[in-house]
This record gives sequence, structure tokens and C-alpha cells, in this order.
Amino acid sequence: MKPLPLSQVRITGGLLAERQRVNREVTLSIEYRQLEKTSRLGAWRFDWKPGQPNQPHFFWDSDIAKWIEAASYSLVHDPDPALQRQVENAIALLEKAPRPDGYVNSHYTVVEPENRWTNLRDKHELYGIGHLMEAAVAWHEATGRDDLLRIMAECADHVRSVFGRGKGKKRGYPGHEEIELALVKMYRSTGSADYLDLARYFVDERGRKPYYFDQEARKRGEDPAKYRFGDYSYCQAHKPVREQDQVTGHAVRGMYLYSAMADLALETKDRELALACRRIWKDLTDHHLYVTGGIGQTCRNEGYTTPYDLPNETAYAETCAAIGLAFWAHRMLRLDLDGKYADVMERALYNGVLSGVSQDGRRFFYANPLAAWPDLPPTESYIHLQRQDWFGCSCCPPNIARLLASLPLYMYSASDRVVAIHLYASSEMEVEMKGVTVRLSQKTDYPWKGDVRLRIDPDQVKHWGLVLRIPGWCRRVEAKINGERTKLVIRKGYATIRRKWSPGDEITLSLDMPVERIEAHPKVRQDAGRIALQRGPVVYCLEEVDNGSDLNDIRLPRDAQLRVQWDQGLFGGTPVIWGKGERRDSRKWDGQLYSSKPSRIRPCRIQAIPYYLWANRGLGEMLVWIRE
Amino acid sequence: MKPLPLSQVRITGGLLAERQRVNREVTLSIEYRQLEKTSRLGAWRFDWKPGQPNQPHFFWDSDIAKWIEAASYSLVHDPDPALQRQVENAIALLEKAPRPDGYVNSHYTVVEPENRWTNLRDKHELYGIGHLMEAAVAWHEATGRDDLLRIMAECADHVRSVFGRGKGKKRGYPGHEEIELALVKMYRSTGSADYLDLARYFVDERGRKPYYFDQEARKRGEDPAKYRFGDYSYCQAHKPVREQDQVTGHAVRGMYLYSAMADLALETKDRELALACRRIWKDLTDHHLYVTGGIGQTCRNEGYTTPYDLPNETAYAETCAAIGLAFWAHRMLRLDLDGKYADVMERALYNGVLSGVSQDGRRFFYANPLAAWPDLPPTESYIHLQRQDWFGCSCCPPNIARLLASLPLYMYSASDRVVAIHLYASSEMEVEMKGVTVRLSQKTDYPWKGDVRLRIDPDQVKHWGLVLRIPGWCRRVEAKINGERTKLVIRKGYATIRRKWSPGDEITLSLDMPVERIEAHPKVRQDAGRIALQRGPVVYCLEEVDNGSDLNDIRLPRDAQLRVQWDQGLFGGTPVIWGKGERRDSRKWDGQLYSSKPSRIRPCRIQAIPYYLWANRGLGEMLVWIRE
Repeated sequence: MKPLPLSQVRITGGLLAERQRVNREVTLSIEYRQLEKTSRLGAWRFDWKPGQPNQPHFFWDSDIAKWIEAASYSLVHDPDPALQRQVENAIALLEKAPRPDGYVNSHYTVVEPENRWTNLRDKHELYGIGHLMEAAVAWHEATGRDDLLRIMAECADHVRSVFGRGKGKKRGYPGHEEIELALVKMYRSTGSADYLDLARYFVDERGRKPYYFDQEARKRGEDPAKYRFGDYSYCQAHKPVREQDQVTGHAVRGMYLYSAMADLALETKDRELALACRRIWKDLTDHHLYVTGGIGQTCRNEGYTTPYDLPNETAYAETCAAIGLAFWAHRMLRLDLDGKYADVMERALYNGVLSGVSQDGRRFFYANPLAAWPDLPPTESYIHLQRQDWFGCSCCPPNIARLLASLPLYMYSASDRVVAIHLYASSEMEVEMKGVTVRLSQKTDYPWKGDVRLRIDPDQVKHWGLVLRIPGWCRRVEAKINGERTKLVIRKGYATIRRKWSPGDEITLSLDMPVERIEAHPKVRQDAGRIALQRGPVVYCLEEVDNGSDLNDIRLPRDAQLRVQWDQGLFGGTPVIWGKGERRDSRKWDGQLYSSKPSRIRPCRIQAIPYYLWANRGLGEMLVWIRE
Repeated sequence: MKPLPLSQVRITGGLLAERQRVNREVTLSIEYRQLEKTSRLGAWRFDWKPGQPNQPHFFWDSDIAKWIEAASYSLVHDPDPALQRQVENAIALLEKAPRPDGYVNSHYTVVEPENRWTNLRDKHELYGIGHLMEAAVAWHEATGRDDLLRIMAECADHVRSVFGRGKGKKRGYPGHEEIELALVKMYRSTGSADYLDLARYFVDERGRKPYYFDQEARKRGEDPAKYRFGDYSYCQAHKPVREQDQVTGHAVRGMYLYSAMADLALETKDRELALACRRIWKDLTDHHLYVTGGIGQTCRNEGYTTPYDLPNETAYAETCAAIGLAFWAHRMLRLDLDGKYADVMERALYNGVLSGVSQDGRRFFYANPLAAWPDLPPTESYIHLQRQDWFGCSCCPPNIARLLASLPLYMYSASDRVVAIHLYASSEMEVEMKGVTVRLSQKTDYPWKGDVRLRIDPDQVKHWGLVLRIPGWCRRVEAKINGERTKLVIRKGYATIRRKWSPGDEITLSLDMPVERIEAHPKVRQDAGRIALQRGPVVYCLEEVDNGSDLNDIRLPRDAQLRVQWDQGLFGGTPVIWGKGERRDSRKWDGQLYSSKPSRIRPCRIQAIPYYLWANRGLGEMLVWIRE
């Protein structure tokens, strides 16, 4: 099975369509203005001179690239001449760039050309090139235009001439992975195996001894032992990737690497790489995954700490890392049709990813903590409790834009004999199978309701299989075919209905969607005695604006009834969860920090909103894990 | 009322006597060896030359000074020729030091004499001198010897010639307070008001604008705005001390300053200073005090964060800060006879202070967290979960030695007409009152039992008042005079018995001492839904060695019976608290990080030990605040 290309799937309504609309109408143009305002786009004039302000940074190209990619996806279903012109302008700048040998990086071209390729460990040359390759492929697929693709093909040739195992080549690989998965996209788009080979080289060279990063550091006159992050597990280069079995270091880097590993495992039928992916996945999901799909517990390495250590207030859970997790999960799902991958993909999407952008599409989170306390000491100021306009290192805003614009890619896949649905959302798709063209539409209020109506319209009556994901959060499901109950056999989170399908066939799926109380493993000390509320794939949280301050003092008794209610006035309509909790009366505490008298408990009403909506109504406390 | 001098009080048995014994027999000699081994004592040969190892550090003198002070206190009741010789040797070294103008600091004398007094903000010249003054006074009072006192008197003259409001003098004050309270001790010991004036100058000059630290930084060619700690609240010099009403910055510095302020308020009847002390005290105890008497929530400034922010695992709660709090509380108690000061003094002593040294007296904590999790990420490595032999900056070990050796000072005070008891411990004291000499002895197992037998032996029958502290933790007390019940009238934590006392009069005091469950204020999010166990003044904790791992998963139901039992096999005999709790069965959780199925709860037995005893049985989890 392959994912369906964007042109064949369109989201037509519901939450995801709304997030796509805001992304298209607001976020993309805001981000373009930021690229202009912050001199990133100007850097593609390649006319910066020493002493001038706005010295191009080595990661700037990647921000433009991700924005081009996002805009390209958006143009597939929603032509927008102004947006298209912006992309064309950007590419036109790059085409005029001085790159006789194909090399692309605005910083190294004008700031320190003599230092090109001297610090793969810390600088992001290959990373930026990778993002531009992804942009080139997306632009090509959206518009048929190959201007950017040609630039990046030349650049890829240049990279291939510099790196590899051949004589005179550098045995290097990127400190920040990205180009590996981009090269697979180049391969898939062009069919040229050179790209695949180069991706495989980068993946397999990684972490071999003697370490390239050591040698490179010594050449720069630096002591490799003084590496700021201690060892190369920070960038997953401490040992060959095939020997790795744990997530380590910087979370986003890892996600991009593992995504490429899964791609290569699929494309080259490399069982060993697939096994490594599965081992690392297990470590991630057994020990390091926030209930929101966020990953990377600490800002110190923008990555992992120790197993079961899941601090909430200081959770880094970078937006890019949740996005990267969706990328990886989607690729694992292609390797193994197993609902556990789709569950994590969906968990990340509806929580840790969507929280990265404000309701109005104008502001962004870098870190996505699971608890907020406005009086956090200023030493923890890397945690923003309000979304920001932009960042110095602004990887997250264009990353979320490209994910939202490409959401349809994650919904369906198909082979000659089956069509699979991985995500539910009102949508229309069309796919060419062996001897039949199938159109399929979904009508649903998912993720707010568990009812999905599927209409299947093959252009002829034919026998094939429809594979339906039954989400892991769902404990009871009912399905009807043309009004008649049918029993689903669920294997690894998917149920397959094989039959002769006729035009107009209809399936209704009822996924039972009560409020669930999630517990964390007893070793997660930060969540001990606490529960998270989840309904469908959506994790909820308490906010101060609805519940008053001192959210940690609220207790939700185990037997408290929880009621879901649609609140039309909130964020243009969203379900909220109501319940009866209890809390202490802090007025009785004046002037006392400790007391040995059991304090009076009073009942209170609690209201929880979807986590991804937090911090859209001003600064205040927020809490995902509620005391039980 | 004045505290009784050390020579008039002796602790004769029980926990404090045992801690004093270990301090005397083990800690003092271990610390002396460390002073030798780490070249601190060698620095007093003043023969270090550039290029040689072991360059004297500017705070080294203070470590020797505190050790001399500790040894001196110990010699009062326990003559020890070897210990006395060690002190004499140290002082002999200092006497031979090149100090034509009286200046004392081993670092600045040999390493950078040209930079003397150029960086009061960051270097610790006045701090070191202050500690040497305290040592000089203690040594003088213990032995009558004035060798060190003469050196420090000369040094004080030098300091007075350099600092002050007079023409040509520097308007400076120390970055790390300490000399202020030391000067008050010099005044009390010698009667010379010059010392008191200098102390008052330092206290009152502090924090005035334009900031001396700014001017001094500019003279060094530094930009004061680049001060590492942001502003001078770090060292309580952001505004004049009389205007301060909050604890700020580095906790130990603050404690030493506030102690001096209380001293000056008393000695000079300065109401304004006393009011400032009371305001700051209220802020500390309302918002920043750990239940262990530890203070200073974070290592980042070795001090305070924000009100009600009391992280447990990363609590800094430096041993020196708890000691400093005992100093300050003791002085506040002299200003106002109010049990709230004695309660905090006792809380700090039996918990956050005693935890600073191992049972065997050989190892030390710098930070005293209230929860320990051995898998803490290495980024938090400043928190040691096992006591250490010594530290690069080793302020805590000799500080705890001097506090333990001087414990009797904190027990009693007296005026011409009353004797007050602030701490209960088996002890003997003698005091000269107006026209009567009173000997008083306590027999008690305090803090393990609440029964205290006091025998009063005046040398003649006379009417005077005995002031008994009724600890704040005690909810019910019974007193008998010569076997007859008497009703106590308790005012601000003290009950006064005025009568004609005859030789052999006996008072028995029964302080009810059940296990208390302490709650923290609803705004303390880290302790929400949790209780601390306290019995008498002693706070308890759970350790992994007694309770298995995942301590945070243990819940102690509100109605759980708690039983106290003496465990003779543990630490040579200590009470432990037993109770029935419950926890989840983590074996059911294999391979799962989250679950929406309510997990099976199983009953478990919990055992809590006194907090100060934690980490004496190997590395493991520890927890003060238990889920309820």
C-alpha cells in the first residue's frame, strides 16, 4: 500500500478542514511576511557584506524551504495566484544565486565560504539542503514546475561528489538529520537511484568509528572531547543506526533520522533497518512519549532525559518533534499496517502538533508543556506560556504549516486490491485500483463524534478490500453496510471488509467515544495519582480561566461523572468536559504555609477543554494531569 | 533575656548529645584532615607562587575559620589536647602571615595582592574576615586565648580604615554578608562600640544608590549590567535593607544579613530594623520555607524562586541556609519571645540541618532535596543523592560542625528574673540570676518522646519565673509541679510559671506527640494532594530500601492508622512510622506507558524514617511528601 498523493484526497469539513483553512488564509501569509521581515528571504539575494546587519544564519534556508513546501501543498487544492507568486519569487531569487558547483546555503555562500563543510556536526548545511529538496519535490508535484527541482538536483550531485565512501570523498554525515528522508523523496519523485544510494550512505555511515565528527573537530583545531552535548547520542551518531535501540538526544533530529530509516527499510527491503526502527519505536512509546504525543522532555538537549521521566511543567515537547513523530509514525504504518503507529500519529496530530499554533493561526509554540504555572521562575523562561509571533530559530512555524497543508496525505493508502483509511475526517478521495476507479467520501464530525459515514463509489462493481482503522482509544465499535450490522474482525487495529463494492455503497461506523481517564505507568512519578482526560484522540486540559487558580489543588474523584457538552461560544464551537471535583478553600490558609489540621474540602465544578486549544485566552495556569 | 554562654549549658544525653559526640569524635578530625589535604591550611604559609598547584581560593580562609570556631566550642566541655593543638597550629600559621596593615586573606595576599578590595561583589574578602572574627571570639571564649582575637582586631581596624562614610574611604559592603554579624560578636566579646558601628555601617550602606557594586565594576572595566545574577537582589543589595520586605537571592547570604540586622536591632534598639526583620521573616515563612526547614528552592541562584514554588526533587535547601535560618531564628527569638521563631529554629535543626551530615559524621550534603529519584537526568547533577566527602566550595561541612558543637547556646536564655527553655534535651545548666544561682537539669528522650522532667535547684528559695516553650506542633500539653497538675497559660508559644522555687523542685511536662499529617498551602502545587508525616519536630520520609521503588505511586489513605515503633536495629535506634498504604501493581504495566483501564490497587505497608537519616543506606528513592 502507498499513501495517496495529495491531489487525490481533499478534506472537506470538520476540525481538520478548519485548521487547514486558517493555515491557508492566515498562517502562510504571516509566515511569508516574517521571512521577509527577518531578512531570511533577503539572504537569497546573496549580497550580504561583512559588517552589514542581518547576517544570514546557517539555518535560515530551511525556514524558507519549509514555507515553500507548505505553500506548494496548499496550492494543490486551493489555487492562489498571490501565494504562487510568492513561491515563484523566492525560487527566482535562488536561481540567480552564485552556485557554480551546485552548493546551496546562504550563510556559507556569503559569510564564510572558506568554511563550507567544515562543521557538519553543529552547522546545518545538509539539513538546509534537505529541506530545499523536500520543497522542490512538493513544488514540482503541486505545479509540475521543475525549476527548484533542477537546482536541488544539481545540489544533490554536488553533495554526492563531496560525501561518500569513494576516494577523496568526505566520510561525513549531517549533525542534524533531514537530507536522508529528503533524498528518498527525490528518489520517489525522479526515480533516480542515486538519491536513494546517497540517503543510504548517510544513514549507514552515521555513528561509525572513528567518528567523523571527532576528525572534523580536530581539523578545526578543536578538542572533540569538549563537545557541548557530551557524546554523539545527542545527534544519534554514537553508534551505527542499525545497532541503536533507544531514542537519544535531540528529539527532532531523531525523528527525521528514523523516518529516513523507515523509508529506506521499505524502499530497499532492508529488514535490519526495519527492526532497528521497531526497537527504537518501542523505547520511545514505552518510556518517553507524553500523552499529548509530545516528545523530548527537556530543553537542555531539546530531547530525552531518562525513561519514565516525564516532567509536565518543563516539558519541552517541541512542536517540530511532534510533527516529526507524525512523519515517522506514518512511515512505520507503511512498513507494518499496525494501528499502534496510527494511534501515535493521531495522538501527536490532535494534541502536540495542533497546540503549536494559535486558534487564529498567527502565533506559535516551540515548547508545548503539559502544565503551566505563570509564576515559573525566570530561569525556566525557555518555556513560553503564550504563543509567540516568531522565533530566532524558527523551525516550528513553517513546519506546522507544511504538516497542516499536507494532512490529506496521512489519511488514506491503497494498493491494487485494498484501500485503507487511517484517519477519519470529512473528505473525498479518488484512487485508481486494478481495473477500477474508486471514489470514496467520508462524512463525520470526528474527532468530536465517533460516527463516520463512508460512501463508496467504484466506477464498476468489483471485489476488493476496504481496510478501516479502529482507533486504539475505541473500546466498542459498530459497523453497518448499507444499513445492516456487520461484525468487524479487528487485527492490529484494522478491520478489513472484503466484498463486491457497488456504486453508492454506504458504511456507517460508530466508534464509541466516552471520556476516558488515562493513567500513566507507576514509574512516571510526575503523573502518580493523576489522570488525563481523553475523548477520542483528543486530550483535554484544565485552564485557570475556566477553573480558577491552583489547578493542582483540584481533585477529580474516581467516580465523578463526566459530561461532554458542545460549547458553541468557545473557539467557534468545541466540546468541553464538565465534572464535579473538589478542592481546598485557600481563603482559610491566610498567612500559613503548612497546617496539621485537615483542611476543609469544598466541591467545585471543573471544565476541561481540548489541550490543543490552551493559551488562547490569555496567560494563566493549565494542567493536563489532574489529581484523582 | 540573653542566651546562656556555652560554658553554662551542657547536653547530657539523647539525640543531640549523640550528634555532638559524633561531631566531636569523627567530624572535626575528618574536616581537619580535609583542610590539610586540600591545601587550605597550607595556604596559611603564604608561600604559594604563581605556577604552583593549589592556588589559594578567596573563600578558603572561611573553611578554616568555621572549623576553628567548631573546635573551640567543642573544647568548652570536652578538652582534647590533640584538637587544641590543631587549632593552635592553625593560628600560629596565621600569626606569621605577612599582614603589616592587618589585612587577612590568603588568596589576595599571594595570588593577586594588587586586586585587593576591587571586587566586593563577587569575591569573599569581608566574608572570610567575618568568619575569622567569629572563630577568634569562640576561641577566646573557649580558652581565654586572645592570639586570634588580636589578629582579627587588627584586621577589623584595617577594614574600618578602608570602608565607611569618612573621607577617602570606600563606600563598599560585602557581596556575601557575614562580617556584619561577626562584628556584633566582636563587640559583645570586647565591648568596643567601633565594631558595632562598623557592622551598622555595612548593614545600612547596603543597597543604596548609586550602587557601590556598579561603581566598582566600572572601575574594573566591566559593564555592571552584565552582572551574572541580573540584579543585586541576588545579594540583598537591590535596595536599603530597611526597605526590604521579601527574602531575595542567595539564601545563605540573606540569613547572615538578617541575623546581623536582628542583632543590631537588639543592640541599638533600632525599631525600624526589627520591623524589617519581621516583614522579611513573614515572607520567608509564608512563601518559601520547606517543611524540613530548608530554604532556597533552586541551585541557579542558590536561593529563592517565586512564592509557593517549592520543588522537592530539585530543592536546593543548602545545609548552610538551614543553619543560617537557625542563626536568624535564634536572634529573632531574642528580639521577640515568640514561639514561631523557636518552632522554625527547631524545624530547621532536626531536619534540614541534621540531614547535612551522615550518621557516621563522615560525609556531607550541600543540597538537601525533599525527594530523590536516582534516575534524575545528569543535567540536574548538582543534586547529590549521596553525601560527599568534601566539596570544592566546602562551606557546609564546617558550618554544620560549628552548629552542632554550639547547640547548647540555643537551648536556654535568662534575665535577672526569668529563665527560659527554648529547646528540650537532656541537659544541665547553671545561671546566675539576681541574688540566686539556679541549676536546672532536663531529663527527656526528646525529640522521640514528649515527656520532659525538669529539676530546679536554686541555691536559695526565691520567687522567679520559669518560661517553658510549648512547641507549635504540640496540641495538648500537661504539666505537673512536684507531682501536682498545673494549668499552663500559653502566650505566643511560651508558658511562664512564676513561683517561689526551692531546691529539688520538679516539673514534668508531657507534650502530646502523635504523628501529624502536614498539608501545604493550596498554592504549593508540588505538594498538592500530598501530606508530610511529622512527629514532634521531626519530619519523616519514605526510602526505597524500606518501601520498594516508585515511592510516588504509594498512597496513604486519609484514615490510615499510623503506628510509631522504636527500631533498635536501625541507626542504633530510631522511631519509625508504620502505616497501611496502597499502590498500583506495576507488573501489570509491562510495555505500556498509558492505560485507560483503572489499574488494580494493592495494599502495601509503608515505613517512614526521620528525614535527616535518609541516604545512609545506599542510593535510592526518597520522598517526604506522600500522596494522600
